Amino acid sequence: MKTRRSFLSGIGVLGASIFLPKTVKAAPAKDFMIHQVYFWLKNPEKDMKSFLKGCEDLIKIDSVKKAYIGKPAATSRREVVDHSFHVSLTVQFKNMEDHNIYQIHETHKEFIAKHEDKWEKVQVYDTKIE
Amino acid sequence: MKTRRSFLSGIGVLGASIFLPKTVKAAPAKDFMIHQVYFWLKNPEKDMKSFLKGCEDLIKIDSVKKAYIGKPAATSRREVVDHSFHVSLTVQFKNMEDHNIYQIHETHKEFIAKHEDKWEKVQVYDTKIE
Repeated sequence: MKTRRSFLSGIGVLGASIFLPKTVKAAPAKDFMIHQVYFWLKNPEKDMKSFLKGCEDLIKIDSVKKAYIGKPAATSRREVVDHSFHVSLTVQFKNMEDHNIYQIHETHKEFIAKHEDKWEKVQVYDTKIE
Repeated sequence: MKTRRSFLSGIGVLGASIFLPKTVKAAPAKDFMIHQVYFWLKNPEKDMKSFLKGCEDLIKIDSVKKAYIGKPAATSRREVVDHSFHVSLTVQFKNMEDHNIYQIHETHKEFIAKHEDKWEKVQVYDTKIE
């Protein structure tokens, strides 16, 4: 006859296997790519809102792993720190292939067509995390 | 009298509250900082290994949330992409305070003292993700 204890212990095992995520605190993934873009806008006051909206749409592209949109942080003014950009766009991809899908994606083309007149400079750094 | 069904339903609620993580697939955290550093080394062939080891030690500072060390990715050569740096160091902090702790940390001072002769240029961008 099943006792209440054996029943509870069964639920425990079941609970653990179903509910516990495999990696509660995973180590940061390596072997991926960071596509880092800094934009300097011609008219930040006028165009910031629509430009940020454009970035939000852009990072919905399927092959994007993670993405962050930001503005200069108010860290100390040091010669080596460039605070002059207006918008930072950090896009992580699983691999180069996913980056290439993003580059030629219709949504990316639309972003450029719609917003390129707004920036006076764009600087990109592509990094392979190993 | 408690029925088996009411007992199971009780376990269900208990199971959910104990076993279900609050965010199985969390949206990317917002409201944090990215301290992005690019290094151009004087003698990358000679110094790369010890420099990378220095970066690995540096990102062990407690206030670092996440950090990634990388090298230029082999993406297309476009005018807007700078592939000329040798090492990229991406450091995420929960907030400005944690960034400031990092900047004045003994380990950071040691990193600079030990390695600054190896780079000919360093470029930093600090971004607040909103």
